[in-house]
Amino acid sequence: MPTPEDVEEAAIVLAKFLTPTPLQRSRALSDATGCDVHLKLETIQPIRTFKVRGGLYKLSHLSPEARSAGVITASAGNHGLGVAYAAAAFQVGATVYVPVTANQHKVEAIQRLGANVVPAGANYAEANAAALRAQFESGATFVHAYDDTHVIAGQGTIALELLRDLEDIDTVLVGIGGGGLIGGIGMYLKETRPQIKVVGVEPNGADAMYRSLQAGAIVTLDRVNTIADGLAASAPGLMTFDLARRYVDEVLLVDEEEMLRAIRLLLESEHLLAEPAGAAALAALMFRYRPAPNERVVVILSGANVSSEVLLRALQ
Amino acid sequence: MPTPEDVEEAAIVLAKFLTPTPLQRSRALSDATGCDVHLKLETIQPIRTFKVRGGLYKLSHLSPEARSAGVITASAGNHGLGVAYAAAAFQVGATVYVPVTANQHKVEAIQRLGANVVPAGANYAEANAAALRAQFESGATFVHAYDDTHVIAGQGTIALELLRDLEDIDTVLVGIGGGGLIGGIGMYLKETRPQIKVVGVEPNGADAMYRSLQAGAIVTLDRVNTIADGLAASAPGLMTFDLARRYVDEVLLVDEEEMLRAIRLLLESEHLLAEPAGAAALAALMFRYRPAPNERVVVILSGANVSSEVLLRALQ
Repeated sequence: MPTPEDVEEAAIVLAKFLTPTPLQRSRALSDATGCDVHLKLETIQPIRTFKVRGGLYKLSHLSPEARSAGVITASAGNHGLGVAYAAAAFQVGATVYVPVTANQHKVEAIQRLGANVVPAGANYAEANAAALRAQFESGATFVHAYDDTHVIAGQGTIALELLRDLEDIDTVLVGIGGGGLIGGIGMYLKETRPQIKVVGVEPNGADAMYRSLQAGAIVTLDRVNTIADGLAASAPGLMTFDLARRYVDEVLLVDEEEMLRAIRLLLESEHLLAEPAGAAALAALMFRYRPAPNERVVVILSGANVSSEVLLRALQ
Repeated sequence: MPTPEDVEEAAIVLAKFLTPTPLQRSRALSDATGCDVHLKLETIQPIRTFKVRGGLYKLSHLSPEARSAGVITASAGNHGLGVAYAAAAFQVGATVYVPVTANQHKVEAIQRLGANVVPAGANYAEANAAALRAQFESGATFVHAYDDTHVIAGQGTIALELLRDLEDIDTVLVGIGGGGLIGGIGMYLKETRPQIKVVGVEPNGADAMYRSLQAGAIVTLDRVNTIADGLAASAPGLMTFDLARRYVDEVLLVDEEEMLRAIRLLLESEHLLAEPAGAAALAALMFRYRPAPNERVVVILSGANVSSEVLLRALQ
């Protein structure tokens, strides 16, 4: 399990590769909600997702031998981009297994970062199984998308930046997919400023963490159904579930329409681009969360890898 | 006329208010153009436009008496936002004259920054005349959108950031409206690194600087017609024309369709939002400029204040 010291060490490693992302107060959203809204722009990370943090910190911990054996993962989305980016930064070979149905734009973006893309299987689970088999045979390091101490510590560096940039934060709203982002952020915040409320947000079509917390044990969904591909995990990990139990105050659910409306609101009133997963936390603030007057709320805009099709749906 | 020393002083002043904007290499655009493309993201300035730089530096030079008399300007767009933002930062009263036809979203954004908005006249010229009359009567300081030493020096701080962040720049592509942005950037670059090529970009429906440079004297257009409201100036200023003559290597013209295609390309391949004026420099790189192989080109994405209507046009 990651500790605050891991996050602080991760921040030192990441400083060699990344600039801290801006935290900007939104006058328009503060007026609209009656609270004090600050947006954390992970949307402008080099690959437009916070995943670059965990990927870089994970790869920084590989031994020279492990580096020459390369890394392997399965993902057709932001995690694949994060691993490919980090592998390029450390000059490590990367192989990313993707389902044969993967979006071609995303496949090209992963290839452009220098990773070897292997189409395998009809869905994520099958691609993941193929990646695990290949990992076993090749000796490459498998990089899990969220259930990994270093990955979680890397994502947690966001919390460190928040505390440095803004005083008296009351609440932080964070999307939940597998739980790596909220695990890292929640752990760091609660261990250092326990009075800050940590609120998770899931799409109602991918509510594995919500159900798991209710059940008191990991629940695996038969299927997930959401436009927020960045949050479409069928189950939390062992580590991320444990972190959420300890450090997350509540989980709110949002529907597809609410995420699309949040994307539109960000475009129209803040001129910011976000993907559905990135806008989910704002959707929760607008439509589900009841802030106190002047409550100081940070909304993590986790990424901006959105397709034209989804943008058109949001704007029409 | 601003000097490199003015730009360096402006950078010190701005550091109290703004974080330098990212300069990011684009793999996708480098692949597409065969050169080495770097994007300067003025699109994520707090008010989504570089104008905040000139506004802040201008207001930092007001005497205590001038500050208490307030500032006045005419604009229904990014300059109005820049002056309002700077006035709020320095706790100076600001009055912004806008044509009665001004976009309501933009008017609200200016008001939200605390400025007093006065609708006056059917177009920009009439609003400007009203602002000048009011300035004469009130003793407030009139802030010109571009033909002002401090405004130009403020915009020039972009060049200083470019030189600090990237070595061996060959070429910088910059949109031209009134010419304040390219005036500041071009002057600083050419005075410190004369080998860097400075290329201006205008919409073919607002080509006042292009025509003025061809004529060797300021040409005022009877009408401007472009979706790039950020570049819709009918004439360069005395100072900006002189700076362009000295420091701009060439001016390229782009059409409306090219700017819309550049907006779409930025969204789809870089997941970045830009307004037409902000995408004009990229449009020139894609469709008009002939870079040498591996030429290191910086594209200034000057702003992101784009309406849903224009975004829909770009995406459809």
